[in-house]
Amino acid sequence: MKCTKCGIGRPIYKRLYSGEQLCPSCFTSSILKKVRRTISRFKMLKHGDRVAVAVSGGKDSLTLLTILDKLCRKHASQLYAISVDEGIEGYRDEALEYADRVCSDLNIPHATISYQELYGFTLDEALKCRKDLKISACALCGVLRRRALDIIAERVKADVVATAHNLDDYIQTFIINILSGDLERLGWLDPTYEPHTNFAIRRVKPLIELYEQEIALYAYLKKIPFQEVSCPYREEGIRSEIRNFLNDLESRHAGIKYIIFKSALSIAHQSRILHRKDSIKRCIKCGYPSSSQICSVCQILESIRKNM
Amino acid sequence: MKCTKCGIGRPIYKRLYSGEQLCPSCFTSSILKKVRRTISRFKMLKHGDRVAVAVSGGKDSLTLLTILDKLCRKHASQLYAISVDEGIEGYRDEALEYADRVCSDLNIPHATISYQELYGFTLDEALKCRKDLKISACALCGVLRRRALDIIAERVKADVVATAHNLDDYIQTFIINILSGDLERLGWLDPTYEPHTNFAIRRVKPLIELYEQEIALYAYLKKIPFQEVSCPYREEGIRSEIRNFLNDLESRHAGIKYIIFKSALSIAHQSRILHRKDSIKRCIKCGYPSSSQICSVCQILESIRKNM
Repeated sequence: MKCTKCGIGRPIYKRLYSGEQLCPSCFTSSILKKVRRTISRFKMLKHGDRVAVAVSGGKDSLTLLTILDKLCRKHASQLYAISVDEGIEGYRDEALEYADRVCSDLNIPHATISYQELYGFTLDEALKCRKDLKISACALCGVLRRRALDIIAERVKADVVATAHNLDDYIQTFIINILSGDLERLGWLDPTYEPHTNFAIRRVKPLIELYEQEIALYAYLKKIPFQEVSCPYREEGIRSEIRNFLNDLESRHAGIKYIIFKSALSIAHQSRILHRKDSIKRCIKCGYPSSSQICSVCQILESIRKNM
Repeated sequence: MKCTKCGIGRPIYKRLYSGEQLCPSCFTSSILKKVRRTISRFKMLKHGDRVAVAVSGGKDSLTLLTILDKLCRKHASQLYAISVDEGIEGYRDEALEYADRVCSDLNIPHATISYQELYGFTLDEALKCRKDLKISACALCGVLRRRALDIIAERVKADVVATAHNLDDYIQTFIINILSGDLERLGWLDPTYEPHTNFAIRRVKPLIELYEQEIALYAYLKKIPFQEVSCPYREEGIRSEIRNFLNDLESRHAGIKYIIFKSALSIAHQSRILHRKDSIKRCIKCGYPSSSQICSVCQILESIRKNM
């Protein structure tokens, strides 16, 4: 049995949706090629861009950093790693050690910002004081983390922030938006979304055409060290129901996730066009982009500080 | 324990998504009210319309006929029942007896057309001669049945054909279109879709805001006789995977099907607007509306007749 691509190597991976059986070298090359195609297809990066890669210390983000390191060096783009330390004892501190190790191996500068420094409290503390907020731990943390990423990206003078959302994340979010009736957010999923009304700095997701399991295999083959345990606050809510459903579907209909991805892209694009806003609204308190008068960050901060 | 609506009757149904506990009378009234609202919301029927109700003999279509009988009499609309006899031995013949019985009870004229009369073969015969067609039994039958409905509706000079698709059918079809990447078809799901490029006569679905289980309960309470066995050719394909997933979701998150319905409506509407066609294309062989040069019916007929 030989690799269906090079005809030489011993295949270690069967790509069910294409029928290919790939050796390690052809598999990892195919991943690089896919990411390069995604970046070019959605015009994610320009020559000379200062790219801040959001790294959590998990497999997706450290794989993204490793891949962009290979791809960007050719395009003379400057690469930075940025991390947010939410203050989750025994979890994020360990993850950031992995991030540090990979950045140091690749010789990429690594800047970190913490909730403590930025907001005056850790996530552990905030979650004890959220009684007035009807919001899950993940939703609360997500709002604060997105803002923290904006700020640390501004500090390194980034032109663009790359996050490691993969195809599975993307289609899960798409389905969740449909299940929650949140159609304006569907437009936010358009990868060509500009102007970016929700972030101070442009966001790109170079891994959105990669299946999560292929990223995991890439990380394994490239021996990228990463944190494997899950966040202690991770909720097994509707996202995990959707994840299981999509994984079941894919196991019976290989390639269906990619078809859903294409449908989601088209629907996101048409939603964006139909809900286009002429100008970026800004929060009257902090001045950051916001869809309401007072942004979610300021609303959360006020409530938490009141209860502290 | 009293009915939460009238405060008198004994509740027999707990509507989980609203918290209501309804007695039989309040439940059936609520169903009539919902259908009336759907018809008015999507401007489905006009005063004086000749309405052909497609009846298969199952619970949904005979419930639709019973409800429209109540609602239309007030609006001086004329009601007809139309059925298609595909020629499925031991199945459709029995179903049509139920349809006949309900029509006769309601004093509604009932017109039937058969594949045999129209195409020169029964479905049983056609399915033995479909080797060249890469198409499932349900897809083949659906194409032929939709055309047959158009023709029988023309015979009774109907202005509009009402079909009994319910909310469950609607959101399943929506998800299937996403899973198959068929985005043009999403536009067809817009209930206000005009001009109707796919049918000779306008189609409306007055039950699309009703959960299937509530239709079943209505039929039970109103003692509507109907055929309960499933079609022998019914396939347990992707639709049943989607059905199970949506039923599971609903059981954990009451009301989520209705939210999906609302999302689907918006997406269907925006898809229709963006893929709007200026004119109706017609099949060069039969002259019926078609999205390709030769319509699916003519393609299927040619292939089956060749193999007979």
